[in-house]
Amino acid sequence: MITSGVRVVNAGLDLITEGVPDALQLDWRPPAFGDAEVARLAAGLDVQATRSANDQAISRVHSARPEWTRTVRAADALPVLSEGRTLLYAGPPIKWERMCDPVRGALVGATLFEGWADSPDGARGLLASGAVTLSNCHGHGAVGPMAGVISPSMFGFLVEDGEARAFTTLNEGLGKVLRFGAYDESVLERLRWMRDELGPTLDAVLRQGEPVDVTGLIGQALAMGDEGHNRNIAATSLLARRLAGRLAALGASPRVFAFLAENDHFTLNLSMAAAKLAMDAGRDVPGSTLVVAMCRNGVEFGIQVSGTGDRWFTAPVGPADGLFFPGYSIADANPDLGDSAITETLGIGGFAMAAAPAITRFVGGTPADALAATASMERITMRRHPAYPIPATGFRGAPSGIDVLKVIDTNVLPVINTGIAHRQAGVGQIGAGIVTAPAGVFLDAVRGLAEAARP
Amino acid sequence: MITSGVRVVNAGLDLITEGVPDALQLDWRPPAFGDAEVARLAAGLDVQATRSANDQAISRVHSARPEWTRTVRAADALPVLSEGRTLLYAGPPIKWERMCDPVRGALVGATLFEGWADSPDGARGLLASGAVTLSNCHGHGAVGPMAGVISPSMFGFLVEDGEARAFTTLNEGLGKVLRFGAYDESVLERLRWMRDELGPTLDAVLRQGEPVDVTGLIGQALAMGDEGHNRNIAATSLLARRLAGRLAALGASPRVFAFLAENDHFTLNLSMAAAKLAMDAGRDVPGSTLVVAMCRNGVEFGIQVSGTGDRWFTAPVGPADGLFFPGYSIADANPDLGDSAITETLGIGGFAMAAAPAITRFVGGTPADALAATASMERITMRRHPAYPIPATGFRGAPSGIDVLKVIDTNVLPVINTGIAHRQAGVGQIGAGIVTAPAGVFLDAVRGLAEAARP
Repeated sequence: MITSGVRVVNAGLDLITEGVPDALQLDWRPPAFGDAEVARLAAGLDVQATRSANDQAISRVHSARPEWTRTVRAADALPVLSEGRTLLYAGPPIKWERMCDPVRGALVGATLFEGWADSPDGARGLLASGAVTLSNCHGHGAVGPMAGVISPSMFGFLVEDGEARAFTTLNEGLGKVLRFGAYDESVLERLRWMRDELGPTLDAVLRQGEPVDVTGLIGQALAMGDEGHNRNIAATSLLARRLAGRLAALGASPRVFAFLAENDHFTLNLSMAAAKLAMDAGRDVPGSTLVVAMCRNGVEFGIQVSGTGDRWFTAPVGPADGLFFPGYSIADANPDLGDSAITETLGIGGFAMAAAPAITRFVGGTPADALAATASMERITMRRHPAYPIPATGFRGAPSGIDVLKVIDTNVLPVINTGIAHRQAGVGQIGAGIVTAPAGVFLDAVRGLAEAARP
Repeated sequence: MITSGVRVVNAGLDLITEGVPDALQLDWRPPAFGDAEVARLAAGLDVQATRSANDQAISRVHSARPEWTRTVRAADALPVLSEGRTLLYAGPPIKWERMCDPVRGALVGATLFEGWADSPDGARGLLASGAVTLSNCHGHGAVGPMAGVISPSMFGFLVEDGEARAFTTLNEGLGKVLRFGAYDESVLERLRWMRDELGPTLDAVLRQGEPVDVTGLIGQALAMGDEGHNRNIAATSLLARRLAGRLAALGASPRVFAFLAENDHFTLNLSMAAAKLAMDAGRDVPGSTLVVAMCRNGVEFGIQVSGTGDRWFTAPVGPADGLFFPGYSIADANPDLGDSAITETLGIGGFAMAAAPAITRFVGGTPADALAATASMERITMRRHPAYPIPATGFRGAPSGIDVLKVIDTNVLPVINTGIAHRQAGVGQIGAGIVTAPAGVFLDAVRGLAEAARP
């Protein structure tokens, strides 16, 4: 017996319900963003084989326990940097000619820092000439925030889990910094200080005691308002408090203490390296539709997928819209940039927004939006990360492991918290916001997965 | 025109709606917890005069900006301790004969610590003889957690705001500690170390730089999962990180660093002292129904109200129910204890539960309960505290300033987060939970306010 009123529910074209009062219009679109060919290719994949491959891939990711074991020169962690002149940058592969200004600026700065040129023009000429090999971080077990430039002498975080390792630079703080393309003397002086004092001191601290369980640190910080990408003050404070005694015992300088006390994003790079190590553990499982990398080079957005090896699926990327610092607007913004989306790839950052309601004041939106963002990411991910419970969602784990097929099925795109760089090298950060990955990379990934599945 | 269905809503006796399907039963009870005489007295108070007095009182409370300026011996901060033999304890006034075991134990420990006796039995005899003056913290501009015992040589936090000041001890950490009534050699050794090294070091740190804005610190920590009473790891980490450089410059010992790194409740006492200073600013406004103190001595719960001066309204207190550590139950619990409810009096602690969903795992309940607790406290408070926005409630300020008349009107009792002490001195903490203040103290307060209003 129908006791309540009958209502019209429509999934599809608005036209059908025009004139029907109170009809509930569902936000339905055909899957694969309307691309029937990709929908057919996705439907053609072997469901059982995909499920089994994904179980294996995501289990590996969730079993990773990256520890911050050492702070070393990049050349000592990354063989590609150990001889000749090579620099790494963020995002999918790109040639010098097509690079955006902030990345070029950062490469100029790194060239000057390494002493390969003695003026910005000289550095630019050297880089344009091809005399310095340019390669992307992700291709070498590394990640870098924003421009993401890594040069041989830079000190950085080494995280390890058994034989597995990942590397990234030390976070420089805010203001004029290399990762936004700045390369004036203040930037180079800081890099030298990080190389000569901060890096070696942090390494001595690690050798003096236990390594740092980065998964545990981030897990604790998610209960303290961090999401591990745009908000890192809890993890940084916990870490600085824990290391303070060791630093004091080593006679660390006031500048080291001040740097740790004043840089609220110190642990961002650490969580990036840990996420990189974890996601690399999920690579190269034949048939798996797990996204193992998302990144941007300021021109293109790129992803890699477990079942398609080192192949990049890319699409043009625009600037993030969000909240701009006074005096700036989206007209000043560089297209989205950096390897930091490796945090979302793992399930923190934008995926864990529910953990960080305070961040909504910084990137726009409300705490309800934060809960909605995390709930929405549950629709496109494989599991909840057991090490990252979020108090506000009843301690459910952060949604973890993007499944290309779920993105295609739901038309829901991954959300990414991001800083916004000025389009001119060296101006620096001008805002922060939330971006979604472009649909095209997931459509291409399905094509790639279908190709790989062909006998 | 009535277009929707008619429903039965009932406020009052269940009987009336028996047999009516789907009737909505509101949880209505007569005001003043059913005490018609108190309801009549409350209704007889001058509404305009009360409102004006309350505006004045709560404005003063919210204008207070307590800063941690010094770390000093109690005798140097509290004149009552500067000569003769006097000890302070938590809660409303009570005689030695009626005190609970943990408070007696703490007084024995303090007597030994001061060298006024050389054995526990000797100390007990001295205390029973009346040779040591016993007085409550609140009567002297101080507060103390749990047993809350303060003796002349103990070092503690001094917070100041212009001429206003408040004092409390330094937090001892968990385990065997004086505030749970323990007084063995490990407890006394720690107190001596706090007197001889930790206290003087912290004071030197303060004199070396800026004082600490406690309101700002707590406000920041509320965006990081603290509620400022049972969860203090964010504020403690922020503070330890900020002071690390100054401590290192002073050559602070490894024990000082370890103490700050391992005691997650270090800032609890600081937030208590700051709350005491703020609430004292709201005292003695004729006609104001603002609660300016809530505290427990392990036998009675007591409140003071702005419009009734130093008068205490008390009622018997029971043990808190909550989550017990393995091996313990409510049968082992001491009745509720301590001055720490000054945090709820200001609007943090249990009132700000929405800020600390992670705490619900520790005290029982769910994150939804945390939101509900804060929403419920809005019904009995005067304003939202502008310095304590809670991200999860859309950055609404914590509900602040309990109005005796609102408690009476709504029958909603203040919630308090609390640690649970074993009923035997020295066993220590055996759990944590949430308690509500007894209704009787608010009924008595209305009687007191009515008396004070008589010409």
